[in-house]
Amino acid sequence: MTTRRSFIQKFAAPLLAVPFVNTATECKAADSQDKILRVAIMGLGGYGNRVAEAMKDSKRAKLVGVISGTPSKIKDWQSRFNIQEKNCYNYENFDNIKNNPDIDAVYVITPNALHKDQTIRVARAGKHVICEKPMATNAKDAQEMVDACNKAGVKLLIGYRMHFEPKTLEIIRQRNAGDMGKILFFQGLSGFRIGDPRQWRLNKELAGGGAMMDIGIYSVNGARYMVGEDPIWVTAQETKTDPVKFKEGVDETITFQFGFPGGAIASCLSTYSQNNLDKFFLNGEKGFGELWPATGYGPIKGRTNKGELDHPHVTHQTVQMDEMAAIILDNKKPVVPVDGVEGLKDMKIVDAIYEAVKTGKRVALKL
Amino acid sequence: MTTRRSFIQKFAAPLLAVPFVNTATECKAADSQDKILRVAIMGLGGYGNRVAEAMKDSKRAKLVGVISGTPSKIKDWQSRFNIQEKNCYNYENFDNIKNNPDIDAVYVITPNALHKDQTIRVARAGKHVICEKPMATNAKDAQEMVDACNKAGVKLLIGYRMHFEPKTLEIIRQRNAGDMGKILFFQGLSGFRIGDPRQWRLNKELAGGGAMMDIGIYSVNGARYMVGEDPIWVTAQETKTDPVKFKEGVDETITFQFGFPGGAIASCLSTYSQNNLDKFFLNGEKGFGELWPATGYGPIKGRTNKGELDHPHVTHQTVQMDEMAAIILDNKKPVVPVDGVEGLKDMKIVDAIYEAVKTGKRVALKL
Repeated sequence: MTTRRSFIQKFAAPLLAVPFVNTATECKAADSQDKILRVAIMGLGGYGNRVAEAMKDSKRAKLVGVISGTPSKIKDWQSRFNIQEKNCYNYENFDNIKNNPDIDAVYVITPNALHKDQTIRVARAGKHVICEKPMATNAKDAQEMVDACNKAGVKLLIGYRMHFEPKTLEIIRQRNAGDMGKILFFQGLSGFRIGDPRQWRLNKELAGGGAMMDIGIYSVNGARYMVGEDPIWVTAQETKTDPVKFKEGVDETITFQFGFPGGAIASCLSTYSQNNLDKFFLNGEKGFGELWPATGYGPIKGRTNKGELDHPHVTHQTVQMDEMAAIILDNKKPVVPVDGVEGLKDMKIVDAIYEAVKTGKRVALKL
Repeated sequence: MTTRRSFIQKFAAPLLAVPFVNTATECKAADSQDKILRVAIMGLGGYGNRVAEAMKDSKRAKLVGVISGTPSKIKDWQSRFNIQEKNCYNYENFDNIKNNPDIDAVYVITPNALHKDQTIRVARAGKHVICEKPMATNAKDAQEMVDACNKAGVKLLIGYRMHFEPKTLEIIRQRNAGDMGKILFFQGLSGFRIGDPRQWRLNKELAGGGAMMDIGIYSVNGARYMVGEDPIWVTAQETKTDPVKFKEGVDETITFQFGFPGGAIASCLSTYSQNNLDKFFLNGEKGFGELWPATGYGPIKGRTNKGELDHPHVTHQTVQMDEMAAIILDNKKPVVPVDGVEGLKDMKIVDAIYEAVKTGKRVALKL
């Protein structure tokens, strides 16, 4: 069986530090360069492990703490990442992190349905939050998270690693420079064939949905950063070939379409039953951009009407953590936002997609 | 402005005779090889001209007659293609073709809305009909055409040149051999930016619709020959950015989706406002096939999960006419049908797409 992990590992590159071509460079005060974001990871699963390994090469972010319900995992991580006992928490006591001056931010990498309460608790503990996507299982919860972080005066960032990926940014740069003319169409095909039927991603209570929450979200978010606008309407159609594996409320396959204020449209696919996807195609009056694979761990492959993109591969999570450290510590503005409001917009769209599936009607969006 | 002709000429190859790798070869009686299909072309416009040029290299089909309402065009064609006076007709007198023993078939290459009456008249004159696609402007008319040809005992073929294209056939061969496993998804993006607003393709009375009739039909038909099944439902969404150019009943852009009996789905785009499209993508459990360009005049470019397809380019219309001669004269069965019922199925789907656009609902199909 192909698990999500084995799927994405197909694209995973060796965790080497590769110089990052920062297309979003802004002036930074020299002193801020010295500041390091000290991070605790909450949820020590497969993706948490990947982020932790990638952070070894980060110049601006350092893994200093862990939060887990499994003592043996904490022990393992302590030895592997040299984490002090005083920076280890479980899900009962992690509110005490507010008394820990050695932790600046918590990266929440737990099942989707847990993000809301955990993010709010971290915010109340006065720490910045980086939350894996989808940030919640619906827009209402996402709004509460944004509000809680605002109230607590902490930053909330969502784990949008593609917003820092060089080939993606190059296509956005060409689009913004007008090289593609008016943008007319985006196509996003996001999916993989999911394995183990017992995993939390197929449990409505923990995942909040199915493929849309886990992998369709890449096309939802990708449509926005590739077109450079927020959609104003959505239509969507669901198909299910395996109702045993994909139970009530767990979507297997959804096709969905967006309309944008400038007249562009998007046509996307979200599925848990196909490999060979992960394709983005952006079409404008004067040119196009293609990414395939578009959102895997890399290497990303891309081309435009001008030819192949040859930017070197970077470890997405390393760059993401460097950039997020700069956003949190230096107030750096990324080319494509990664804040809680960005995540909230995606959740509003996902809500609308599910509504469009249910009603069969075009759903208007105001983001 | 980009016209349809200049668009497709981007892909047009020199009209050279290239050996055709016939993947649909069947045993033929030696004597039938000697028979030649003697063809008259009705409608001496841009595409008629292309077919006539391509027929110069056909081993089995020969242009011997013309039907046109423009005497100067007839004169021009007579000299260019060495056509006898007795084989020249206009739209008033072409029923007399029934008394002409030197013409076997008429290739109808006129505006869509004229196909029905012209096809029925040719059938009544006892000649085989090759009709350009779309064969009509709706399924009712298409059915009448099929019925009339059956009644007259003549063959009715639709100008589906891609059904004979080597790279397309190779993907179909791999699919049929099981190399791609169960077929799960087809994506077809068909469109170009249409130029002159006064052309008949933008006139509802002559075209029967807009982009869907002219270029979307490639994704409609392509979905069927790529998946290898007929769809059982359709949903569709229309967008229009230029209601002056694309008047009531003339569709600019439609996204549409199909469901197939085996569980596969299709997600397609039909548009008159974008270039850089003409992309087909077929995805199965074990492999994929991609064509880009998929339906232009060539060269077609294709690849599967096994690598690039390197079949030599053929002039589609030359191969089509050779193969259609064999179908008509030798009762050859093509890998993908090109008969009137095949065209009728596409018209039923187009009807359903327009209905789905109008009602916003999923429309069930029985083909």
